[in-house]
Parts: sequence; C-alpha cells; structure tokens
Amino acid sequence: SKRYSITLLPGDGIGPEVISVAKNVLNLAGSLEGIEFNFQEMPMGGSALDMVGVPLPDETLLAAKKSDAVLLGAIGGYKWDKNEKHLKPETGLLQLREGLEVFANLRPATVLPQLVDASTLKKEVAEGVDVMVVRELTGGIYFGKPRGFGTNEDGEEIGFNTEVYATYEVDRIARVAFETARKRHGKLCSVDKANVLEASMFWRKRVISIAAEYPDVELSHMYVDNAAMQLVRNPKQFDTIVTNNIFGDILSDEASMITGSIGMLPSASLGSSGPGLFEPIHGSAPDIANQDKANPLATVLSAAMLLKYGLGEENAAKRIENAVLDTLNKGFRTGDIYSAGNKLVGCKEMGEEVLKSV
Amino acid sequence: SKRYSITLLPGDGIGPEVISVAKNVLNLAGSLEGIEFNFQEMPMGGSALDMVGVPLPDETLLAAKKSDAVLLGAIGGYKWDKNEKHLKPETGLLQLREGLEVFANLRPATVLPQLVDASTLKKEVAEGVDVMVVRELTGGIYFGKPRGFGTNEDGEEIGFNTEVYATYEVDRIARVAFETARKRHGKLCSVDKANVLEASMFWRKRVISIAAEYPDVELSHMYVDNAAMQLVRNPKQFDTIVTNNIFGDILSDEASMITGSIGMLPSASLGSSGPGLFEPIHGSAPDIANQDKANPLATVLSAAMLLKYGLGEENAAKRIENAVLDTLNKGFRTGDIYSAGNKLVGCKEMGEEVLKSV
Ligand SMILES: CC(C)[C@H](C(=O)O)[C@@H](O)C(=O)O
Ligand SMILES: CC(C)[C@H](C(=O)O)[C@@H](O)C(=O)O
Repeated sequence: SKRYSITLLPGDGIGPEVISVAKNVLNLAGSLEGIEFNFQEMPMGGSALDMVGVPLPDETLLAAKKSDAVLLGAIGGYKWDKNEKHLKPETGLLQLREGLEVFANLRPATVLPQLVDASTLKKEVAEGVDVMVVRELTGGIYFGKPRGFGTNEDGEEIGFNTEVYATYEVDRIARVAFETARKRHGKLCSVDKANVLEASMFWRKRVISIAAEYPDVELSHMYVDNAAMQLVRNPKQFDTIVTNNIFGDILSDEASMITGSIGMLPSASLGSSGPGLFEPIHGSAPDIANQDKANPLATVLSAAMLLKYGLGEENAAKRIENAVLDTLNKGFRTGDIYSAGNKLVGCKEMGEEVLKSV
Repeated sequence: SKRYSITLLPGDGIGPEVISVAKNVLNLAGSLEGIEFNFQEMPMGGSALDMVGVPLPDETLLAAKKSDAVLLGAIGGYKWDKNEKHLKPETGLLQLREGLEVFANLRPATVLPQLVDASTLKKEVAEGVDVMVVRELTGGIYFGKPRGFGTNEDGEEIGFNTEVYATYEVDRIARVAFETARKRHGKLCSVDKANVLEASMFWRKRVISIAAEYPDVELSHMYVDNAAMQLVRNPKQFDTIVTNNIFGDILSDEASMITGSIGMLPSASLGSSGPGLFEPIHGSAPDIANQDKANPLATVLSAAMLLKYGLGEENAAKRIENAVLDTLNKGFRTGDIYSAGNKLVGCKEMGEEVLKSV
C-alpha cells in the first residue's frame, strides 16, 4: 500500500477541532483506496508563540518541508493582535508560505445548490457561481523590499512597502492559472491595475506573453476596481481569475463571501516541487473555539484538495467531496450554514456524518 | 448676487451629454438662490489627446486651478486603452488630482428606497445601505516613488511601485474622515492591511493618534480583505470608511456596485484649499455614447456635491438633491435603472424632468 507523510498544523482557535475531523476523514478515505498516512502534528501560530516564543518554529518548517503535504487549521486570535510584526501569528503563516515556496494559491468559490440561500446575493445571481481565484502567494507587496519605516526628505516619518514582480514570478503563476483554466471552462481573467501601476503593466505584459502557450484558453484582462464590482454584479461571468498577492487576498475573500458559506471553502497553495499547503479559507474564530460549533467542512474539503493537487490521489479526493455532498443532502448543517428544515449538528457530529459517507 | 466660476471638463464618451444636463441644473438651482455661474469648458482625457496630444493640457489645469470648482464628466475609451502610460486618459485624471492637490475623495454609496431592487443583493441586505468611503487620493502606491521597470540582482526584468505614506498625508485624510463621520452617524472604520504591510501599520498608528481629537467619533479598524467581505455580507454595518488610495479604489467601487445603481453615484475630491473636483463615479461608457441613453443623475448629484462641499451653498445643493428624488418618485428612469412600471427616458428628457423639480 502507498504511504504518505502529512504534517498537521492545528494552529489556534477552532483549528485543532477542524483538523481532528479532517484527519479522521483522510484516514478513512485513504484506507479505502489503499493509502496509509503518517501524521505528524506540529505547533504553529499563536499556540507556537505561547509555547516557544515564535509563530513558526524551525522544527515545524523542517517537518513540513520533509513531508508530502501540509494541512493547516487556522491561526491567529485577539490575544496576539497587538504583537509586534515578527511575533504575530500571521507572520508565521507568511514564513511558512515562503519557506515552502508555495507561490500558487488556488481558492475556489462555489455556490452549492444546497446552500444557495446562504448567499446575501439574490438567488438568480448566486446560483451556479463557480469561480477559481489563482492568487500569487510569495511575491508582490507582501514580500517586496525595501519595506519598513523611515523619514522622507522633509524629515516626516513614513511607512513604506514595495510592490514588485519579476519575469519568472509572473510567468510561473500565469502557467498555473492557464493550466487551471484549461481543466475548468477554458476562460482566464487576469486582474491588475495596469492603467496606473507599472508593476501591473509588467504583470499584464508577461501574462499576454505566456498566453501564447495556451491558445485553447480564452484570456481577458480586468482592472481590479472593476473586478470588485463585477463579482457583485454578475459573479457567473468568471471562470478562473489570476491576480497578484494583495489583489488576490481581497478578491478571493470577496468571492468567497459571495457564496455566503465561507465555512465550506478550502484552499491549496502549491509550489513547483515539494509539499503543498492546504487550509480552509476561514479564520480561527476564537469566539466559538472549543465549543464544538465550528464547521469542519472547509478543512475536510482542503484535505480533498490535498489528495487531488498535493498527492495526485483523485479517487480518494472524490470520495471526500462526494461524502461532503451526501452529508449536506441528508440535511446536516453546522450553525454557520443552518437554515430551517435542516438538522443542526456540531463539529464532531458533522465529522461523524461525513465518515459514514466516505 | 454671488458669482462663481466653474470649470467644466466634459471628457469622453457619455461625458459631454451628462455635463450638459448638469450645467443646466446648476444654472437653474443657482439662479433660484441668487447665484450666478461663469462656466468654462476645457478639454481633457481622450478628446484632449486627440486634439492636442496630451491628456491634461496645461491650459486646462490652469483654468481648473483658477476656478472655484471643477465638474468632470468621464474620461477614457477603448481607443486609447493601449496608449503608453503618459498618453493614457487616466494619466490626465491623476495629473489633475495631483495638480489640484485634492487628497480627499468622498464617495457615498447610498441605496435609495426607489432603487433597492436594482441591487443584486437581497432586499433585506441592501435596503438602508448608506456608506461614505473617504479615500486618500494623492498618495500611496498611485504616486509613490521609486516606480518603473528595471532588472533585479538575478538580471530578471521587473516592474515595481512603492506604497508610501507620510505623517501629514495620513493625518489630513484622517481629519477629513473624522469630520465626515461626525456629520453622519459618528462611526469611522479605518481599513488597512496592518497585519502584513508596514505602510498600513504606519497608517493605523497615525489614525489612532488623530482619533484623540475626535472623542465623539467611534473608531474601528478592519483588514482590507475582511472589509471586502463585510461589504457583501452586511453593508449596513458601515457608516464612514477611511482608507488608502488603492484600497479605496477597490472598496468604493465594490460599495457602489452593492447599491446596484452606479449611474446614480457622485463623488467629491477635496483639498485643503483651492477648488474641489466633482465627478460621477461611473466611466465614459463609450458603447452608449451619443445615443441619449446615459443616466445624467450621477453628474447632477456631483453638481449638488459641488455646491455643498465645494462652495458651501447648501440650499442650492438641497434643491438639486430633492429634484432628483422627486424625479425618481415620479417614476422617470434611464435604461440602467429601469424596472417595470416606470417611465423609460433618455439622458435629455431625464435632465428636463429634473429641471421641472429644481
Ligand atoms: C492572515 C493573512 C496574513 C493572510 C493573507 O493576507 O494572506 C490571510 O488574509 C489569507 O488570505 O490567507
Ligand atoms: C481611471 C482610474 C485612474 C481611477 C483610479 O484608479 O483612481 C478610477 O478608477 C477612479 O476610481 O476614479
């Protein structure tokens, strides 16, 4: 039987609860497909800060790098919000992305027919939405140098960051995006602010150049302000979106909220080689932590992405995806997606129900 | 009687049509309040490019600076989209903002009861939305240096921009925002990405420091990705938002689309002294230009903002605002806001109807 080693990073808040569910689901789906997992839990985020004083201990990064894939719960919480930058849980996440060189962040935003009412958008606008945002994750203004604090010529204090992209960075994320669009509906929309920013003009030029390798994919371009509007006006117009780190942060969150069920949405962060990082897009929700209220499905679906994109185990991935749909069809709902006529369950029970359908 | 000189910049596409309506409305509202206007039309945008080869001729900027207020229609169009940066209509707009030093961009996004169905959001989510986005307009990544193209240490081509804010820049926009919130419902939300960007940490620090001058205003902070979500989830939670140039570009457009009627939305750009710049938030809509189809109400309402914020003529402003509401109440609608049971009119007829109610 096949064997994979998986690093689990439960993190903070509801992270440990949802990871525990996803681990059980992975184990069962794997065993039914002749796959064995070797799990290693490592500290990260606020809990790592409390234990060893840094948000990403060296041992955690090392273990992650040596494994076949990494599954993260969630990080952060009020407790650490005022920490200095290098002692923020978020900084640990950025270090992990950088350390694993996972430059391509895939964020699907899908409105499931079972949950269309959860959207704040009118039914006819929300139903059938199925967007994949491909976000550049290890470059741009998140990592660009110079950055910091200083004084300008007039002796005024300043804070500054650099938005910068190099050829190889745009080329590689563009290729991932074109490949992704090709496997979906063949439409790619590149989002930038090329009417104002040189970094965006450069981005657009490289995307157009890479497009020559993908004549079967239909490429369009949109300014980021317009994209933010179009996601509200008519999200169905989008198939695959590719954009830089900061615009991707904003637009993927907007797209996910358009589905109305962010407790359902997974993500995958992939590099050229080495392990991928898989995590739900929701946060650590400290206010409901340890109350068995969290929705574990985003993490369970992240585990499915781990199988599909991280390990190439499509059959095991499909088992999990179908089990989630079955469970929804049976009417099981955690509080965040509950509506009248369904069965309200906690995190654990939701996990047990999914297991029954794997 | 009082006299004001107004520079009109009709611009491109539907710009001339909507400016012509707004000019008539200004004239009438003014005359009823003992105000006389001296209008001067100047070229700008694509039409200036075609005429004299630059998007903002020196004479235009000079005339604008010497006048009491500037009313802009819209600029841009497919025709000039591939122009080099210094020959883009958009560059003319950025030069105008910089030249007039209008650092504070006020963008209201209001859902009128008459138009609540135009929103793609569910009625219960959209109704009553009334957000004011205060966007910093002459700083940040739009103007920061260094910027441009080059090569990195590895000899790779790069494109780059600088996000930078100095003390005085944040302080002055924060003061405008606190004053604005004070006149509204006393709640200000400052949006940034202070968990990642130094420029945002600096922004937040300065906003908190200025808050001491406004103990009556309730200040909160939100990350930009969360703000993009919250505008979709529950836009009514916001009163006044203050944010940097690029986040303001994205969020104000998102907020305006949430109203569903961007043909209705005005904007004001103000400096510390000197004339303000007033313009509808919609674009030049080249596809419907010269067909008498444009909605002139965003420009008419921009003229009302000109009277109120630019000249302090509140009574004349109120006349225009009320005339617009009356006209909507009578059921007149241009195509973009048309719904069954109302009267479909063109740009000119809409203008004539507004005049009847001024
Ligand atoms: C927590 C934060 C640093 C992170 C980001 O901005 O990338 C988050 O918002 C995300 O999108 O994963
Ligand atoms: C046309 C463009 C340069 C401009 C901007 O980005 O500021 C526009 O989108 C706006 O918001 O007024």
